[in-house]
Amino acid sequence: MQACLELAQIPDHGLLPNPRVGAIIVYQSKIIAEGFHRGPGTPHAEIAAIRNAEKKGFRKFSQSDLYVNLEPCCHLNKRTPPCAPQLIEKAFKNIFIAHLDPHPLVRGNGRDQLRKSGIKVSVGLLNEAAQDLNQAFIKNQTRSETYITMKLALSFDGKMANDSGQSQWITSEASRSFVHQLRNQTTAIGVGSRTIEIDDPRLSIRLRQKSEKFSKLVIFGRPKDLKSKKVWKVFGPGRIIIWDEKIEKLPRRLYEDHGIYQLLVEGGPKLASSLLLKGLADELHLFYGRGFIGGKGRFSLGRDWTLKSLADSVSFQPQSAGLIGPDLYANGRLNVYRYHPKNR
Amino acid sequence: MQACLELAQIPDHGLLPNPRVGAIIVYQSKIIAEGFHRGPGTPHAEIAAIRNAEKKGFRKFSQSDLYVNLEPCCHLNKRTPPCAPQLIEKAFKNIFIAHLDPHPLVRGNGRDQLRKSGIKVSVGLLNEAAQDLNQAFIKNQTRSETYITMKLALSFDGKMANDSGQSQWITSEASRSFVHQLRNQTTAIGVGSRTIEIDDPRLSIRLRQKSEKFSKLVIFGRPKDLKSKKVWKVFGPGRIIIWDEKIEKLPRRLYEDHGIYQLLVEGGPKLASSLLLKGLADELHLFYGRGFIGGKGRFSLGRDWTLKSLADSVSFQPQSAGLIGPDLYANGRLNVYRYHPKNR
Repeated sequence: MQACLELAQIPDHGLLPNPRVGAIIVYQSKIIAEGFHRGPGTPHAEIAAIRNAEKKGFRKFSQSDLYVNLEPCCHLNKRTPPCAPQLIEKAFKNIFIAHLDPHPLVRGNGRDQLRKSGIKVSVGLLNEAAQDLNQAFIKNQTRSETYITMKLALSFDGKMANDSGQSQWITSEASRSFVHQLRNQTTAIGVGSRTIEIDDPRLSIRLRQKSEKFSKLVIFGRPKDLKSKKVWKVFGPGRIIIWDEKIEKLPRRLYEDHGIYQLLVEGGPKLASSLLLKGLADELHLFYGRGFIGGKGRFSLGRDWTLKSLADSVSFQPQSAGLIGPDLYANGRLNVYRYHPKNR
Repeated sequence: MQACLELAQIPDHGLLPNPRVGAIIVYQSKIIAEGFHRGPGTPHAEIAAIRNAEKKGFRKFSQSDLYVNLEPCCHLNKRTPPCAPQLIEKAFKNIFIAHLDPHPLVRGNGRDQLRKSGIKVSVGLLNEAAQDLNQAFIKNQTRSETYITMKLALSFDGKMANDSGQSQWITSEASRSFVHQLRNQTTAIGVGSRTIEIDDPRLSIRLRQKSEKFSKLVIFGRPKDLKSKKVWKVFGPGRIIIWDEKIEKLPRRLYEDHGIYQLLVEGGPKLASSLLLKGLADELHLFYGRGFIGGKGRFSLGRDWTLKSLADSVSFQPQSAGLIGPDLYANGRLNVYRYHPKNR
């Protein structure tokens, strides 16, 4: 199952609304074939693994086991045919699944179809680790809400800009390059109107190929003179959403009204502070760079918070950390989404 | 030579005023014996390696090569006999040294003694990496100054305490345990008088065995009612130094007047900011914990700095990073000390 999780992570672009899935076929304790999902409209991992096995001339599926980190699908309203019937046709001996599919049309139905055909199905291997891999997908499917990630670029003393507002650049070229990878994995970018007005960033995705669709852009507040800004050219009117409602409504509205599966918020301090304090940021990408700026901290986080005790802080525990060029990087989740139906 | 550097790092306590040194003996492309220095009064690495070889019954030193990261010593004013004559007695074929010893009584004399006896001596293998390992020793010997490391425990938004001054605890038990390891490697701890007055910390070293000597404590400013504070019991009058001179004089005075080889400064914000801005902090141990505190940042770094541009920041680039329990940790040098005499 660990091998499935590793396969699932191969694509370097986002797959949403689809999940990351890897599958392997095991015959007589040997891995015969591997497969993983490459994104909407392409074969699911199980089918990719079967095709790879068949290419090698393998036919003994009925004496083989299949490992896959997500329950095989059984519904028809998508571009690819459902997986469960194809697995039944191959009559696998055992199928091991990390967790059930939270998609409202699956939720145990795939497993039940497989079991009815006589295949032994076991659910739960590396369940938590597999769910960690697909947090956005699980939030989307269980709550009909957008998954919100946030990028914060801070000086080592925690400022987003010096007191005169200068923020270009706190982090290095290497970190900024990495942010382009993050943009490549999301379905929309979020930014405050002040950032558009003052910094006039492009917010483009250097890595994405021209033939692929650009993301959408969510601007918080209405920036002055938007048509003269660089994002107007990069995104165009059809892909810019101006958000001027209550911030609490953000995850549901973006998902239901705009089909945004994942939003990457890229500051400034007011927007970031508000998302943090209200528990709306699901995941953080934290970069510390440049050094120590000092000053009164006009552009630091939570200026208007009045938390009485350290115990009231917005807790954060990174899950991974490292160096990116000269900068310090940490990644971690603020919210955890789980799909744990009672009947397995 | 890489093996020597790894051996040198085995002791988990500080060796100052002595350097970290490892040595290996190679005969016919095989490592015959290893040795490393365990601290003042114990054998130097070269001699430890020779003894380990002899224990195994090895005698063919004159057909062997010796690798050691520091030039063998040749002076007498210390507890152990000089190494160079003992290496000459063994008549090694080649001796490889990473860098010359900056100790005023050595500085190439050890190398010259060895060469005169007919041993081929080569200096410079992994020179920079070896010097990185002994920054405090090199600063001590080349500048007669104390090496100053600093521990900073910050919230993820860069505060050392919330606006009411609460700082216990921003970092986790795991990080605080690690700080005890850092204290175990230094010769003195430095702290501001306000910290003594308000937090009344013990600043003890949990790891150190009772038989070993405690460090000294340097208090910046004269704290009120010192005799009622915990540090008075832990350190006692003989090991507490009250610093009330100009901060710029700190490295030289602590070294020359008090024999302090390395000082670990443990905050608060005023002291830390001053050492950072004046370039007196040589190395940082940076811990981010708890989460986001917000507020006006009354206890953040560099409150009174008025740097005009980001380019004026106190630059910092961590050399290593990772997670310690739930906290983010980074370590890096702000100053680099090198001993590069012209004649090799």
